[in-house]
Amino acid sequence: MTSEEPIRQADPAADEQQDSSVQYGLNDEIVQKIQDAIREGRAEYIQSALAEWHSADIADLIEQLKPKLRSTFLGIMEGKLDPDVYSDLDENVRDHLVDEMAPAQIAAFINELDIDDAVDVLEDLEEEEQQDVLREIPAEDRAALEEGLSYEEDSAGRLMQRDLIAVPEFWSIGHTIDFLRDTVDLPDEFYEIFVVDPRHRPIGTIPLNRAMRSKREVAVRDIMDIEQKLIPVDMDQEDVAYLFQQYRLASAAVVNPSGMLIGVITVDDIVDVISEEAEEDLLLLAGVPEDDLFGNVLSTARIRFPWLLINLFTAMAASAAISMFDATLEAIIALAVLMPIVASMGGNAGTQTLTVAVRAIATKELTSANMFRILNKEMIVASLNGSFFAILIGLITWAWFGDPLISIVIATAMVVNVVVAGTVGMLVPVTLEKLNIDPAIASSVFVTTTTDIIGFVAFLGLATLVLI
Amino acid sequence: MTSEEPIRQADPAADEQQDSSVQYGLNDEIVQKIQDAIREGRAEYIQSALAEWHSADIADLIEQLKPKLRSTFLGIMEGKLDPDVYSDLDENVRDHLVDEMAPAQIAAFINELDIDDAVDVLEDLEEEEQQDVLREIPAEDRAALEEGLSYEEDSAGRLMQRDLIAVPEFWSIGHTIDFLRDTVDLPDEFYEIFVVDPRHRPIGTIPLNRAMRSKREVAVRDIMDIEQKLIPVDMDQEDVAYLFQQYRLASAAVVNPSGMLIGVITVDDIVDVISEEAEEDLLLLAGVPEDDLFGNVLSTARIRFPWLLINLFTAMAASAAISMFDATLEAIIALAVLMPIVASMGGNAGTQTLTVAVRAIATKELTSANMFRILNKEMIVASLNGSFFAILIGLITWAWFGDPLISIVIATAMVVNVVVAGTVGMLVPVTLEKLNIDPAIASSVFVTTTTDIIGFVAFLGLATLVLI
Repeated sequence: MTSEEPIRQADPAADEQQDSSVQYGLNDEIVQKIQDAIREGRAEYIQSALAEWHSADIADLIEQLKPKLRSTFLGIMEGKLDPDVYSDLDENVRDHLVDEMAPAQIAAFINELDIDDAVDVLEDLEEEEQQDVLREIPAEDRAALEEGLSYEEDSAGRLMQRDLIAVPEFWSIGHTIDFLRDTVDLPDEFYEIFVVDPRHRPIGTIPLNRAMRSKREVAVRDIMDIEQKLIPVDMDQEDVAYLFQQYRLASAAVVNPSGMLIGVITVDDIVDVISEEAEEDLLLLAGVPEDDLFGNVLSTARIRFPWLLINLFTAMAASAAISMFDATLEAIIALAVLMPIVASMGGNAGTQTLTVAVRAIATKELTSANMFRILNKEMIVASLNGSFFAILIGLITWAWFGDPLISIVIATAMVVNVVVAGTVGMLVPVTLEKLNIDPAIASSVFVTTTTDIIGFVAFLGLATLVLI
Repeated sequence: MTSEEPIRQADPAADEQQDSSVQYGLNDEIVQKIQDAIREGRAEYIQSALAEWHSADIADLIEQLKPKLRSTFLGIMEGKLDPDVYSDLDENVRDHLVDEMAPAQIAAFINELDIDDAVDVLEDLEEEEQQDVLREIPAEDRAALEEGLSYEEDSAGRLMQRDLIAVPEFWSIGHTIDFLRDTVDLPDEFYEIFVVDPRHRPIGTIPLNRAMRSKREVAVRDIMDIEQKLIPVDMDQEDVAYLFQQYRLASAAVVNPSGMLIGVITVDDIVDVISEEAEEDLLLLAGVPEDDLFGNVLSTARIRFPWLLINLFTAMAASAAISMFDATLEAIIALAVLMPIVASMGGNAGTQTLTVAVRAIATKELTSANMFRILNKEMIVASLNGSFFAILIGLITWAWFGDPLISIVIATAMVVNVVVAGTVGMLVPVTLEKLNIDPAIASSVFVTTTTDIIGFVAFLGLATLVLI
């Protein structure tokens, strides 16, 4: 394949023979070709190769490029780049690129974005740069952006689009359709028509397909759905996502504190929120406060640092617990060899319970109403598994060290620690949630510290009692 | 508040004064009231209280009820329950309830569900029970269910709805709208009209809002979008979700191997997939192969068991590594006290890198094209943090034990283990992905085993060289 051959993305419809492993989007070969072309400065080739690409794929391409080639690439594509590319970019990569742009350049592409996407880009800028950019934007658009920025981060106000179709209840379907035909500045995508009262408060909705199927003379009030979930503008995006998932919403009206319709959130905006929130929990549980894949070395090291520091202190607390038993360890060195086993099993059993609990709290499946029942179950599960592993490790230790007393000590410590693990693995996240602390952020440090210390103390303490 | 007062769910539109902390859905007080009413057998009260509830909220209520009250509740609600409640239920709870029902009862509610939801319920049944239920279903509906079951689990075929609107390209918009008005059996929700060729292969799409805004005489071929992402019926749901997220799709056509349009997937189906897939990764990383919150004790213990068993063997491997140095430990008991610190810090640093990598692989941000660059970054980050913590633990150890040689040993072991952690934390998931093994399932056992063993061996080995 010569490098001048046009680069095409895989298209499953193009070839009936293709198998289902065909993936849309980028592949390594494509990235390599573009990278070579950038190095060789073949601007026309790149421009024509990317002419048909979706903005999300171009954003992925930029993320895959070596950082020093990214600016060159932007230079080559200048004026030919869909502004959506900027909103599709990873935040770290975008910040890096935007840093090198003049406020007027930033303003130029921000002005082409949807308000919600534009606000996303703006909020990542330094306060001063944000002001510089806003000054470059025409006054009428600036007001909308400033309004967007005025809503709290991760709130419904930031997610919503302001363009929507709202009609009074006394209109007919025919009137509504004529209104749609005559209105030039309509939202790109919408799934329902809102019906509002004279104070512009939402009173009903009509799915587009129902509107299409109705006769022109039908009144909107006669075919509208009265039940609808309204979203307060300051609702947290996690709660908004919950509503969409729970009630399978396609779109929902956003209202201000007086109940007036001020925007609409559609399910495609929610897809990203669900993905983000799940990612947040996953990373938090591992002690990574934000996604740093494309962050630079210093910021990545800084993001990971606090968790490691906390862990250093908890590990030292475990060491301090061990040091209480140094005479015992000196007497029977086999204990030093075996002691990490009980702590490690407790840590793993605790993390299993903890993770199930954190996820169940996030999905509202674990609540005060069923908490005791589930805690009870976890303790029985822990007793079952703990007993099994106690017998197993007891037998293995006996075979290894030939001392039945050590076996009894490690087996007993194992049961104790696995049951403690199951209990704290459930209690810690539930308690944090009650205290309005995100259980994902702090649970695992509490749980593993507890299981480490209990693991060492139970094992070495029992050994001191029984063996010394 | 007396218990006969009607139970209402929170409704923010009902009261302008309400604050934004109002949550839709259940709360503990409501669950408690219903639970009391079930115990007291107040059937009429419960039926009227729940009359306006959404099926998803009733499903949540059933999950929150004590298991022995669930059947009583179903008895009370018999004939008044929206069949969607069954598809909204947690799988474990549903299995438990369905176990007590006769095939004819199961068939009755399955027959009321959308095909995709019905197939979801059916696939969880035992093979024999599934056949019994299918026999109770009228032949014409049974064929659709059997077709649904014939697609692989978690494939596009299972997600898609078969009801869709497809029109030939030579039709006009007016003709299309008349067709919609005359067709009784239309899908509940749809966002676009598909245009097909004479062999029923999709050639374009028209968003509903565009169809509504067009004049009746316009030909569909003149306003259709030609570009569309087609989904092969056997595509894995994770890949389908990726397409929807990447290209912000509202709906997409599903095609069979001959390229014929056989179904449609809409973004609201994808919301659940994204949530499920993220949950799967989160739980897998913690060694929980499936969500077991509502599982019974035995199945939960069984689900958690394999991970703990693997962990027992890896912990014993670490013990075996320690036992190579028992003479050293015997000579300097402080080493036994300190040795968990290096292993623990390595484990945490490794888990941080690993989690970022697993997530980035799932979102296709980490690929062969940028893997070496990011591995390189991770190693520098690990060197930075490792060096910092080496100095810190060196100083603390010196203050604690007053022996500069022990400080040097632990500091050196710390740098080594944290750098190893960063490296294996990135290499293990990337390698597993290349081998087509889900990196979430097996990465963490490899990484923590490595960091445990390297942690103990580096620390005790260096101590043996330097101190003995």
